[in-house]
Amino acid sequence: MRLTADARGVYPIAPTPFFDDGRVDTASIDRLVDFYLGIGSTGITVLGQLGEAPKLTHAESVDVACRMIRRASALPVVVGVSAPGFAPMRELALEVMDAGAAGVMIAPPNALRTDDQIVGYYRQAVEALGADVPFVIQDYPLTFTVQMTPAVIRRIVDELPSCVMLKHEDWPGLEKISALRQWERDGRMRHIAILCGNNGLFLDYEMERGADGANTGYAFPDMLCDVVRLSTGGAREAAHDLFDAHLPLLRYEQQPGVGLAVRKYVLMRRGLLSAAAQRQPAVALSNAARAEVDHLLQRLARHDPRAQI
Amino acid sequence: MRLTADARGVYPIAPTPFFDDGRVDTASIDRLVDFYLGIGSTGITVLGQLGEAPKLTHAESVDVACRMIRRASALPVVVGVSAPGFAPMRELALEVMDAGAAGVMIAPPNALRTDDQIVGYYRQAVEALGADVPFVIQDYPLTFTVQMTPAVIRRIVDELPSCVMLKHEDWPGLEKISALRQWERDGRMRHIAILCGNNGLFLDYEMERGADGANTGYAFPDMLCDVVRLSTGGAREAAHDLFDAHLPLLRYEQQPGVGLAVRKYVLMRRGLLSAAAQRQPAVALSNAARAEVDHLLQRLARHDPRAQI
Amino acid sequence: MRLTADARGVYPIAPTPFFDDGRVDTASIDRLVDFYLGIGSTGITVLGQLGEAPKLTHAESVDVACRMIRRASALPVVVGVSAPGFAPMRELALEVMDAGAAGVMIAPPNALRTDDQIVGYYRQAVEALGADVPFVIQDYPLTFTVQMTPAVIRRIVDELPSCVMLKHEDWPGLEKISALRQWERDGRMRHIAILCGNNGLFLDYEMERGADGANTGYAFPDMLCDVVRLSTGGAREAAHDLFDAHLPLLRYEQQPGVGLAVRKYVLMRRGLLSAAAQRQPAVALSNAARAEVDHLLQRLARHDPRAQI
Amino acid sequence: MRLTADARGVYPIAPTPFFDDGRVDTASIDRLVDFYLGIGSTGITVLGQLGEAPKLTHAESVDVACRMIRRASALPVVVGVSAPGFAPMRELALEVMDAGAAGVMIAPPNALRTDDQIVGYYRQAVEALGADVPFVIQDYPLTFTVQMTPAVIRRIVDELPSCVMLKHEDWPGLEKISALRQWERDGRMRHIAILCGNNGLFLDYEMERGADGANTGYAFPDMLCDVVRLSTGGAREAAHDLFDAHLPLLRYEQQPGVGLAVRKYVLMRRGLLSAAAQRQPAVALSNAARAEVDHLLQRLARHDPRAQI
Repeated sequence: MRLTADARGVYPIAPTPFFDDGRVDTASIDRLVDFYLGIGSTGITVLGQLGEAPKLTHAESVDVACRMIRRASALPVVVGVSAPGFAPMRELALEVMDAGAAGVMIAPPNALRTDDQIVGYYRQAVEALGADVPFVIQDYPLTFTVQMTPAVIRRIVDELPSCVMLKHEDWPGLEKISALRQWERDGRMRHIAILCGNNGLFLDYEMERGADGANTGYAFPDMLCDVVRLSTGGAREAAHDLFDAHLPLLRYEQQPGVGLAVRKYVLMRRGLLSAAAQRQPAVALSNAARAEVDHLLQRLARHDPRAQI
Repeated sequence: MRLTADARGVYPIAPTPFFDDGRVDTASIDRLVDFYLGIGSTGITVLGQLGEAPKLTHAESVDVACRMIRRASALPVVVGVSAPGFAPMRELALEVMDAGAAGVMIAPPNALRTDDQIVGYYRQAVEALGADVPFVIQDYPLTFTVQMTPAVIRRIVDELPSCVMLKHEDWPGLEKISALRQWERDGRMRHIAILCGNNGLFLDYEMERGADGANTGYAFPDMLCDVVRLSTGGAREAAHDLFDAHLPLLRYEQQPGVGLAVRKYVLMRRGLLSAAAQRQPAVALSNAARAEVDHLLQRLARHDPRAQI
Repeated sequence: MRLTADARGVYPIAPTPFFDDGRVDTASIDRLVDFYLGIGSTGITVLGQLGEAPKLTHAESVDVACRMIRRASALPVVVGVSAPGFAPMRELALEVMDAGAAGVMIAPPNALRTDDQIVGYYRQAVEALGADVPFVIQDYPLTFTVQMTPAVIRRIVDELPSCVMLKHEDWPGLEKISALRQWERDGRMRHIAILCGNNGLFLDYEMERGADGANTGYAFPDMLCDVVRLSTGGAREAAHDLFDAHLPLLRYEQQPGVGLAVRKYVLMRRGLLSAAAQRQPAVALSNAARAEVDHLLQRLARHDPRAQI
Repeated sequence: MRLTADARGVYPIAPTPFFDDGRVDTASIDRLVDFYLGIGSTGITVLGQLGEAPKLTHAESVDVACRMIRRASALPVVVGVSAPGFAPMRELALEVMDAGAAGVMIAPPNALRTDDQIVGYYRQAVEALGADVPFVIQDYPLTFTVQMTPAVIRRIVDELPSCVMLKHEDWPGLEKISALRQWERDGRMRHIAILCGNNGLFLDYEMERGADGANTGYAFPDMLCDVVRLSTGGAREAAHDLFDAHLPLLRYEQQPGVGLAVRKYVLMRRGLLSAAAQRQPAVALSNAARAEVDHLLQRLARHDPRAQI
């Protein structure tokens, strides 16, 4: 099953679970996938930036992705294949596509500056991967320092039919969604899926601007599923109420660097990960920070019983 | 009255009010200052980055600062004097200090990279201004791309007695506050005031980590004053409750670029600014964005009557 | 006399002369201008990046520019007016144009990334200055971190008739000149002057690619004049011979940061500046570096008697 | 044979030869190594930035490095192992060390800013590789945007005994060499080898400042060997004469991006590479650029017969 431009709903960004000694924790992979299936996710993304992809060897990357793919069964799995060069990108992409991945996600290398450089990069990536591998643009300037205008995204979509989704995590980014959707309505651009990242910090309004869902790793993907469902179903205030209840914690988890430690700690407290461990380089959670997360969970539990952990 | 390391409370970052035709709106300056006085601010900062300082001529900068200083009367006014060179920095600093400013705020130029470059820059700034002008370090890597470790801040504080305050807006930044305060407790660093910026996005926990207050421009500085008061007074959950109620809007205003348009729009709706106008270059608020802010205000008003505007 | 797209030859970038105590050295300004006139310069640019423009107060900037303009008499003087905001840019531009400047030079602020941001910035600058002020685009990515493709330059030229010159200092940059000139030949872009900066590091081949001359501050502008004359006159190998003789020193002076100290030291040794002083922040010349420059001059003097100083 | 702090002479940066269809050209690898042996190189570095390392799969990287190592026989081979994460870095390092590599070279990832981050990164790298793998710091801010002060390099050298060499390519960088060598003379820092990169643009004076040789890929490594030999042997002016004769071409090859195309073209013209091909992404040489390189070679041949090709 290949990823298409009709993707919607929530594709959680799966963390890569490690034991404290640095080995990959496969039991937690299975537990995560089962959890994602149970909460109504419509897909999964693995080996993203916050999946610690660069810290894995090639063989480990393939193992992690394939285990997710097998376990996820009917659920489409998108695999992050961003790499400093096209040969390793191609190698990983072809292996995981063979293993049943639905598509791949590609982030731009941070030296790209001009519009032409960005479009040229995606063109070369498609030449390397083949035009039959569906791909997701990861648009995350805060991390990659690459700024894509709506017009650049449209050029990529126009030129490269295998581009089917935008992982939208520009900040600010609401107007970008509106611009792309307006072009679509005007018949000036074909439809692609827009799923939102950046820990979901603006998911409430992104849905109202025309996003199709979420593609991020917030430690309560079940909340993301609910908000997307409520918002899509027209229950606007209920969607905001639930989102707002999570916002204090969500904001805390969205911090660069330390954010992944927060996420893994909460996932561990939720019983989904055996350990909160990351491979190096990693920012550890201080005692004070851990206490703050506990406090945030406690406060959240007043509104959302899933936080009673 | 000079700024000292004992500063605390809330120093709102004052926007520079403009009419739609680009002229400075002095009546709104007066109204803002009166408002800041009325809500219990302990100081005011003018001509910050979000005070559109670079868009003013030198003469306009002096006029705006002096009008604030006179109107603020007993309240200390800190003036942003960041400039691409020391001669214009010195010129502005000396004029506003003569006019009664309490101190100046200095941001690092974005070419600085190494620890030595950063310390060297502040050393040269003090040589230019004179050692009797109290100054505030503005530590805002998201905007200035300059990363200061706690150790660099300590070096500046150790070497330069006129450094009395840190406008802390690193992100993530909680551990930085803890590190500086720990050194203080250990007698390894003299006390300086730490007031927090970055729109207050982490003010709730920053206070608990040892910050002395807020130094930011969120459109509800009265909320900032309340949160600082509640937190200082030990009413922890009440502080969080009030903060959390504002977080959806606060997060929306904290967006880079468009954030200032949000802030000025809300201040206009609150009757404090005659117009929401900015000078060029400026990001305008779309109709959709304006409607979202209205929606956020409406939702906020359920918790904080000050948002019923 | 206004700057037009027909500008050609050599516009030296004039340094701002200071005494060791930091005061502006007006006698050296006069001496420099007289020297530029004597060697066949076709114009002068003042208050560029290496004219230490950001280190001057507004009043000093006006004084330096006006003194140059008056002394240069019939020679067109371009004034750098780059500023962090349009109000100070406009103020300086209008004052110097009133005083007889031929045009202004505008560098892009280093936050610009996308093609649209760059074009938008120059559009707003022209709105601020008025469409009757001829301006030069400064395209220097190494210093400003802004990358302009040929297509972006063409968009600016197409949209803004007051754009008459490109100070070309992209690196590598030869293909950019060829692309712009090809569009001109194809009738797809109107002619603008292209004068080359970056200390002239590629002036030899830039002339052959279609540049109209040099616009840089190398301490032997008389060599630049000769190379431009020889190259324009078809004496290709003679142009390269002279250029190559200077290349060891020129490369040394082109170093970022310390380059200006080298330049001012050589200009002092040539009797054009009373002192090699810069205002802070400045990188000083070590004894070793000074000896290296002396050595380079000595070696150069074997080929060019002007280096016997 | 392990790399030690006594390394000196010339370690050419070997390009990775490709056929026009993108396959690795092993015959050219052998030819290059034989050539490096013949001209008096004292070592070889493979899989550097300009060895197109990121464009190879892991298996290809191992193959290229091992072929070099075997062919080089007694000559020490340093292998670039820079990677976005420590697991792939460790994997490659251990494989090539097993195969007889002399040591590895590690570039800092471009997100590093503060002194502590840089030192911390090298500490973690050594934890990943083991303290018995000799390593080279690659200090190339122009490409990596990471600025290391001399003090940071000293901290790394002090803390990590397996650090034995600096590939010095800061720009400007002469004072850095002097500072490190002064500390060495003062007994404040142990000796490490300093070999210079950046295409050798300042090799003439770098040798005089205390560098031990060159570690760069200029297409005439035989010239580098001669200059190092002449300079070390006290034939100062002869060293400069030879260096200056090459400077016009060397400067041309040192251009970012297009420089590798120039280098491979010259190496092909010299009969060392079968093809000038690069893998994507690559900047191609235009006809005009190729003609310029031919012209530069022709002019160089008047001084150095090795350029008669």
